[in-house]
Amino acid sequence: MIIVMKPGSSREEIDHVVKKVEGVGLKAVLLHGTERNVIACLGDKRDIAQDFWNALPGVEKAMPILSPYKMASREVKPTNTEVLLGKFPFGAKKIGVIAGPCAVENKNQLISIAQRVKEAGAVALRGGAFKPRTNPYAFQGLMEEGLEYLAEAREKTGLPVVTEVLSPEHVQMVAKYADVLQIGTRNMGNFVLLKAVGEQPKPVILKRGMSATLEEFLLAAEYILSRGNTNVLLCERGIRTFENHTRFTLSLSAVPQLKQFTHLPIIVDPSHGTGKSSLVNPMSKGAVAVGADGLLIEVHIDPEKALIDGAQTLSTEEFKRLMKELKPLAQAVGRDV
Amino acid sequence: MIIVMKPGSSREEIDHVVKKVEGVGLKAVLLHGTERNVIACLGDKRDIAQDFWNALPGVEKAMPILSPYKMASREVKPTNTEVLLGKFPFGAKKIGVIAGPCAVENKNQLISIAQRVKEAGAVALRGGAFKPRTNPYAFQGLMEEGLEYLAEAREKTGLPVVTEVLSPEHVQMVAKYADVLQIGTRNMGNFVLLKAVGEQPKPVILKRGMSATLEEFLLAAEYILSRGNTNVLLCERGIRTFENHTRFTLSLSAVPQLKQFTHLPIIVDPSHGTGKSSLVNPMSKGAVAVGADGLLIEVHIDPEKALIDGAQTLSTEEFKRLMKELKPLAQAVGRDV
Amino acid sequence: MIIVMKPGSSREEIDHVVKKVEGVGLKAVLLHGTERNVIACLGDKRDIAQDFWNALPGVEKAMPILSPYKMASREVKPTNTEVLLGKFPFGAKKIGVIAGPCAVENKNQLISIAQRVKEAGAVALRGGAFKPRTNPYAFQGLMEEGLEYLAEAREKTGLPVVTEVLSPEHVQMVAKYADVLQIGTRNMGNFVLLKAVGEQPKPVILKRGMSATLEEFLLAAEYILSRGNTNVLLCERGIRTFENHTRFTLSLSAVPQLKQFTHLPIIVDPSHGTGKSSLVNPMSKGAVAVGADGLLIEVHIDPEKALIDGAQTLSTEEFKRLMKELKPLAQAVGRDV
Amino acid sequence: MIIVMKPGSSREEIDHVVKKVEGVGLKAVLLHGTERNVIACLGDKRDIAQDFWNALPGVEKAMPILSPYKMASREVKPTNTEVLLGKFPFGAKKIGVIAGPCAVENKNQLISIAQRVKEAGAVALRGGAFKPRTNPYAFQGLMEEGLEYLAEAREKTGLPVVTEVLSPEHVQMVAKYADVLQIGTRNMGNFVLLKAVGEQPKPVILKRGMSATLEEFLLAAEYILSRGNTNVLLCERGIRTFENHTRFTLSLSAVPQLKQFTHLPIIVDPSHGTGKSSLVNPMSKGAVAVGADGLLIEVHIDPEKALIDGAQTLSTEEFKRLMKELKPLAQAVGRDV
Repeated sequence: MIIVMKPGSSREEIDHVVKKVEGVGLKAVLLHGTERNVIACLGDKRDIAQDFWNALPGVEKAMPILSPYKMASREVKPTNTEVLLGKFPFGAKKIGVIAGPCAVENKNQLISIAQRVKEAGAVALRGGAFKPRTNPYAFQGLMEEGLEYLAEAREKTGLPVVTEVLSPEHVQMVAKYADVLQIGTRNMGNFVLLKAVGEQPKPVILKRGMSATLEEFLLAAEYILSRGNTNVLLCERGIRTFENHTRFTLSLSAVPQLKQFTHLPIIVDPSHGTGKSSLVNPMSKGAVAVGADGLLIEVHIDPEKALIDGAQTLSTEEFKRLMKELKPLAQAVGRDV
Repeated sequence: MIIVMKPGSSREEIDHVVKKVEGVGLKAVLLHGTERNVIACLGDKRDIAQDFWNALPGVEKAMPILSPYKMASREVKPTNTEVLLGKFPFGAKKIGVIAGPCAVENKNQLISIAQRVKEAGAVALRGGAFKPRTNPYAFQGLMEEGLEYLAEAREKTGLPVVTEVLSPEHVQMVAKYADVLQIGTRNMGNFVLLKAVGEQPKPVILKRGMSATLEEFLLAAEYILSRGNTNVLLCERGIRTFENHTRFTLSLSAVPQLKQFTHLPIIVDPSHGTGKSSLVNPMSKGAVAVGADGLLIEVHIDPEKALIDGAQTLSTEEFKRLMKELKPLAQAVGRDV
Repeated sequence: MIIVMKPGSSREEIDHVVKKVEGVGLKAVLLHGTERNVIACLGDKRDIAQDFWNALPGVEKAMPILSPYKMASREVKPTNTEVLLGKFPFGAKKIGVIAGPCAVENKNQLISIAQRVKEAGAVALRGGAFKPRTNPYAFQGLMEEGLEYLAEAREKTGLPVVTEVLSPEHVQMVAKYADVLQIGTRNMGNFVLLKAVGEQPKPVILKRGMSATLEEFLLAAEYILSRGNTNVLLCERGIRTFENHTRFTLSLSAVPQLKQFTHLPIIVDPSHGTGKSSLVNPMSKGAVAVGADGLLIEVHIDPEKALIDGAQTLSTEEFKRLMKELKPLAQAVGRDV
Repeated sequence: MIIVMKPGSSREEIDHVVKKVEGVGLKAVLLHGTERNVIACLGDKRDIAQDFWNALPGVEKAMPILSPYKMASREVKPTNTEVLLGKFPFGAKKIGVIAGPCAVENKNQLISIAQRVKEAGAVALRGGAFKPRTNPYAFQGLMEEGLEYLAEAREKTGLPVVTEVLSPEHVQMVAKYADVLQIGTRNMGNFVLLKAVGEQPKPVILKRGMSATLEEFLLAAEYILSRGNTNVLLCERGIRTFENHTRFTLSLSAVPQLKQFTHLPIIVDPSHGTGKSSLVNPMSKGAVAVGADGLLIEVHIDPEKALIDGAQTLSTEEFKRLMKELKPLAQAVGRDV
């Protein structure tokens, strides 16, 4: 932590800050600059909010040096973490593709989508049973019935099943059926839910909040890790910006940057990240090229009939073609699919 | 709904869309333009996602005409709604100020802050017992113990008590102690929680999500209203932008715009909206000038000792001065404080 | 400047950075932390880009301590600067309102608007002769003819005249007719133009770039000041964010924050900042309440007939009412209008 | 254009709008909906601002159907445009890489960088002689001297030379030396400059404004095209968002989206788009994977000694490696490099 004092801060103010710094067990080094006095604080106290220091009289700004997350950090664990979804390790050489409908709508439809995405090369099936809808009057998902269909689709295809959990009190029920729990973008800051999925053992796909910095994203992962569950995949899914040609701006630079910051696997959701099916193919390729460990893609037998998100959903034919096109691309960056 | 067909869309595609439109009970009017064919859909079907139409072959874009919220809309209810916090009606002539510490830290501190903000003119006490912290290692609040202190502060001062609820399973417990439930910015899209507070009768302060459009904000309110609880106050608390001189950008234009869209009372939180105590005074004045019905302000006896958010917290002295300065301003816009 | 070294940076890398620091005339103080080595650089070298240091091997990040602007800074000049527009001092107790049509359209219309805004209390007339239009096929302004009409309107009313200059080669011509030169939001980063207006003596209204931080805004002002022209007014006019209820998000917190950073007068443009005439009245009040020194407002006799920006333009009647309503508000914050 | 009337708009207001619509030569079709009246305007009048309609009494909103650009539109010209830089066609099968230092610093350095990037496979040399610097005290480029060195580097290597032009009065001078004129992000809205480069024949690289929508970007291109110069390359270079791990957010989805909207070639600048040399390699690959026609990359023999932007600059070694790695990637998407 570097504390910059205001110009003209008094001797008393400086002494007061120094005392506070030493009071929490840090070493204070006072530097008299030509235009500012600066107090360098040596030691590791990530849990004291920067804000605390900013509130002291005479302080202009406090600048943290260490990231506030630890377990998620590559400094603490330099080697890549591999997370198993079924038997497929995310974070290893092969890129894993998770595919399926936005929402589980009925059993037959789900099973037939599952079979086709498996044939095309998907390693896991996604499908929402509990749907977080902006509009209270819109279809909210089949709930437990949907979970049963997912479990049945797993029986039929062998694909592990990924589904979203919306609330702490549903965690146990969802974990009973699903292989992987997904935390959606609107719940990245739902810390009670993060703790709940951190206290059970199934892998978690954590989606980036649509207005989260990478530091906030990694702190959300830290909530899960610090509760004992280290099977976390991070998912870039688009951020909110002024751009209006897509629903969100898919920030692909987050992928190589996160790879530097953390050892956790990173996947990308080009369906929600763009909101347009015509952009899913190129952005999937882009994600692979920048180093993503996996993709999360919405696929439906008949996108036009999808109850939710039809406009961003690939048909099973389009998905098959995408999988074929991804292979040489993955190989060109030393991976495979 | 206006559906714009792509240039060169076929007769079959147009017929297909028209059939779909009529299939959901809307009337389709086909307009042959010089460069585009357009299908105007007459009738009110707000619950069909725009996205559904975008997925149909040949469609360039679907443009909704009606807002998707109803109960929150001023079209449905033209007169202002007044929401009582204790005996004070928000949404009427007088502007109500809610004040208190970010977090409840101990009983004596809380009561003494409560007494001072009451003397200065606050009409309700705020204080967090459950704190949503970005950092998992930071202080998470006193929880039920904090709620007890809040209830005690109410006994001592008569001020109704506002506190945040983080999770559906806490709603009952929090509602037992508090007079008003607050939904924080990170939970505006936590629809399970919105439903839960919509199913109990105490008033709710709903904070705008930091990346929510006004339509999304009003749809979140609609979740609560549609479950039967019509005592909702909307709170603008800053949005996430590229600006870095404040923690968030407090969007004061949201206040008069929301006043046009909705009958619900609107309050403003200049403490979180700026993150800097030196900006709380001017931005409180700005909020009153643009037509806010209330303010939500962080106050502490000793901001430097606040466990959370000290940098944005007013001292009780500063708060007293602010309340005095707000009065002529409120009167200048035909209100009072 | 604080330079944070990467974890595990070598002795050689540290020595290399220290040598570079000393090479530019700064004093380097090396601090060995538990997790990072930090080099504090003492002295004032604002002209060396932070980027230079970031490029050195072993450096994790360089954090500047001093703002890069000087002449615009309140540290360098603590007292408010007053800038005269005609005889009216902006930056003093009275708030000045500049009003007029977006574009000069014809002589009679301009003169009649000028007379009415003067009667209502405006202290200067605005009107565009050169219009920066997003659409190349849209009306681009009357150019020199428009400037002549502005000069004539000044003769008739005594109001000083503000108009935009788009290009360095027009500066001389525009300055011949106008009393105040305006730099638009799209030209805040047009440094050749900034230098050109800095080399002539007439006051300059510098609009904030729609994606400029306050530091970048003040550096743009510094371009003008450093060329010798100290008559600069800063104008907040809305920034680009994800919000879609307004054309831009008017960031009123920029006003009190700029007041802390700089001695220059700050004005606000609620017309462009919102894009909606129904929001101009409340946001003008908000601007006065947060401490603005002036307002820049689009007014037309018949907004419906305005060639540009009709939707955000007040009628002369609405403007008159606004001026009346602003007076008690200005007085409530210790100013006048 | 679709004009939506406010609920409760009067017969007179509707008639008034219809008359205005017909007055500009459009056909008006009035649709009586259950909750709104809507006026569909048939015909093509892109040059009338939407804003004009929004200003009419009783109008809730006007929604344009046609994009306001024409010459840049793929509807008008369905086939890809190829732009020659020297002999290399951008927009054809091969992906072209333009490389060189941010700023021209001295002759020998420039020539030696030029030789190395040519060896590595670059098809054009970039280098700034006029530098738009945020900080007025920073190095502003060698100006005409820099242009001379660029011309000399072209003589020595055969590489066509790309350099930025900052002001209309420099266009002639810069065009005398350079093969390609670059318009920087801060000048995308400098319409006088756009017209000036549109009136000369050399190809133009137009960088996207850091806060420009794709429509605004294409309208800026339209300024150039409509003046007679059809040799325009569009360059995505990052947009301003809340993200802080990169200087800007490189929006790769803009590439395939622009490909749908326009026939012009699209290139990507990963150096400015990220501001970090460690992200240039992966983001270059991402750009190729999503379909970019070219890349613009900052390369220096000794990035540490670069006077500007060292932190985002590749060494010639790193560039050589990148070029080698791009080849299989380009081939994987059916292109070459």
